Amino acid sequence: MNVNGKHYETIWTDPVNERIIRVIDQRCLPFRFEIKEISTSDEMAGAIADMVVRGAPLIGAAGAYGVYLAVIENEGKPAYRDMVIKSADRLKSARPTAVNLEYAVNRVLTEVLKCMDYAAAVEAARNEAGLICREEKEASRLIGEHGWRIIKDISDRKQNQIVNILTHCNAGWLACIDYGTALAPVYKAFGEGIRLHVWVDETRPRNQGARLTAWELGQQGVPHTIITDNTGGHLMQHGMVDMVITGSDRTTANGDVANKSGTYLKALAAADNHIPFYAALPLSTIDLRLHDGLTEIPIETRSQDEVRYIDGLLNGRIENLLLTPESSPALNIAFDVTPSRLVTALITEKGICKPDRESILALFSKRQKKMF
Amino acid sequence: MNVNGKHYETIWTDPVNERIIRVIDQRCLPFRFEIKEISTSDEMAGAIADMVVRGAPLIGAAGAYGVYLAVIENEGKPAYRDMVIKSADRLKSARPTAVNLEYAVNRVLTEVLKCMDYAAAVEAARNEAGLICREEKEASRLIGEHGWRIIKDISDRKQNQIVNILTHCNAGWLACIDYGTALAPVYKAFGEGIRLHVWVDETRPRNQGARLTAWELGQQGVPHTIITDNTGGHLMQHGMVDMVITGSDRTTANGDVANKSGTYLKALAAADNHIPFYAALPLSTIDLRLHDGLTEIPIETRSQDEVRYIDGLLNGRIENLLLTPESSPALNIAFDVTPSRLVTALITEKGICKPDRESILALFSKRQKKMF
Repeated sequence: MNVNGKHYETIWTDPVNERIIRVIDQRCLPFRFEIKEISTSDEMAGAIADMVVRGAPLIGAAGAYGVYLAVIENEGKPAYRDMVIKSADRLKSARPTAVNLEYAVNRVLTEVLKCMDYAAAVEAARNEAGLICREEKEASRLIGEHGWRIIKDISDRKQNQIVNILTHCNAGWLACIDYGTALAPVYKAFGEGIRLHVWVDETRPRNQGARLTAWELGQQGVPHTIITDNTGGHLMQHGMVDMVITGSDRTTANGDVANKSGTYLKALAAADNHIPFYAALPLSTIDLRLHDGLTEIPIETRSQDEVRYIDGLLNGRIENLLLTPESSPALNIAFDVTPSRLVTALITEKGICKPDRESILALFSKRQKKMF
Repeated sequence: MNVNGKHYETIWTDPVNERIIRVIDQRCLPFRFEIKEISTSDEMAGAIADMVVRGAPLIGAAGAYGVYLAVIENEGKPAYRDMVIKSADRLKSARPTAVNLEYAVNRVLTEVLKCMDYAAAVEAARNEAGLICREEKEASRLIGEHGWRIIKDISDRKQNQIVNILTHCNAGWLACIDYGTALAPVYKAFGEGIRLHVWVDETRPRNQGARLTAWELGQQGVPHTIITDNTGGHLMQHGMVDMVITGSDRTTANGDVANKSGTYLKALAAADNHIPFYAALPLSTIDLRLHDGLTEIPIETRSQDEVRYIDGLLNGRIENLLLTPESSPALNIAFDVTPSRLVTALITEKGICKPDRESILALFSKRQKKMF
């Protein structure tokens, strides 16, 4: 997508020095647009853990390039395979909830371990990481193609009145390689001339909505309004939301959707007000091994200081404020699980599908199903 | 309640100069404990609008003293009655949702207008405002007496394991004169030795939970943990919440509860997880004229900058940070309505009552009912 008119993806290899991976440093947005260089696997694990990069598809891609960097770092070492396996483990444990990380790291690692010599391993890792990025980009594009028809239908039903779409967290192009998951249908519909407006949940504690979603919608010229995470229920009660669409960090074989903390509350309100709730996600986010989201999906707990302190802009500088009494503890649970009964449908690159086992399995090829 | 060991209420007349009302400036908490002097009715209306004082019972009391100040300001003016009526209108419109403001201002105004001369009017206003404060304080105490038995029952059922109570916004003593509404049962139960812990919703955008509830619970030594407003659903899904208790800014005759934005989402999650949801409120918060909360309760929209900017502590000073892109608009809806079907019971000074018309009307005397 475009930033000040120039096209960017969220992660790429440096065109001159292939030993360097570049990413948009998402901790600085919307206040500064900064590119960060990453040249070791450990740096990549740190960037994932610190949310320099975030979003399920993007941390998958970042993990993939992390394995590639691990191979490069261990040039000339006879035991390079063992070192790469160790780095892969570190990368996979950087964040626990999004299954894409494990999936992508394992894909690259598998290719590396197949190689007979070091030079082949470097090339295999680079190729596989690149392939993952291209696949994710294409998946996002197709999610947009499938999903925008839902927006079009609502627009038609409303006789071209503005379609109001609520989203939580950031599942835009910043969470992916390009296009986005939840926002891909929004961009596509907007590009097709549908009149729409996005309610952007600010998404405490890290404010990915207020900071990232609002910024990327603004860059593409999409009308939007930031609201607190508390506000969506009232808007739904008063007919001010036509659909809810979010991403997902891990979706089970039966259609339970793990996503940013607070998604479940919006899904409850959508159900209570007969508003459709969609989760948009590539197949790489579906974990066919799991059958009960509430008990089986690992939910990340992050530092309490992400709740107690907040970043923002003061006199042109990003500062960090204390929000709470010094002595009051906080708990920071990063995700929750929306049971499939509250999900209207999943929007994937293979089409729109009911959140049930049969429909979800039908999306996968025999070969893919065997992997689980 | 106690602040650093010294007893305070939230509003009082200066013991030396009765022309001055003193309040705790709640905009400074938890970072500084400051007392603010208010000596005109306009200042009081401003203090209510700017949330120097907030909380339904307290803004009622503040409005009452605002009328008293209006009488004092107009000493020696033959048309003082008209001036007081104008000031009362300004006070009532300072914030629209809490019915207590209208109720308390009208009570004092009625007493003033009954008086034959100015001196009597001053005394009537001071007396009625003082009476309202004493009544609200006693109502809060009784809400604690009735409500703590609910906590006791849960504690007994859990065989004295810790009772986990979730609350939204601040409905503690800072929202009242003393004791609180939602927190009065908590303080009483804690004082009775029940093992309990409070999940404190931070309550965006003004963070009354993270700033006020956490602070006042900390001052009284009550164990608590601050969470984002997004987190309660996950906690309820995982058996980590035994009950939800909030205050109310206006409750209709049929038991619909207007309260701080986001309350409805917690009530939905409580219902979905079979957890009881209580609203604790004095009768002064019930508006018998209204029968459908969703369409009839006026809901306040406040400045979008309360969402776009945030106050916190930096290097010992309260600073104000920008959280969003400069060009992204925000919407700030301060309250929402929880339909009575999601409310387990109301806790009032007259006892615990079902949220239905018959049970609610039974709380009122014939004389009170006639007023509506």
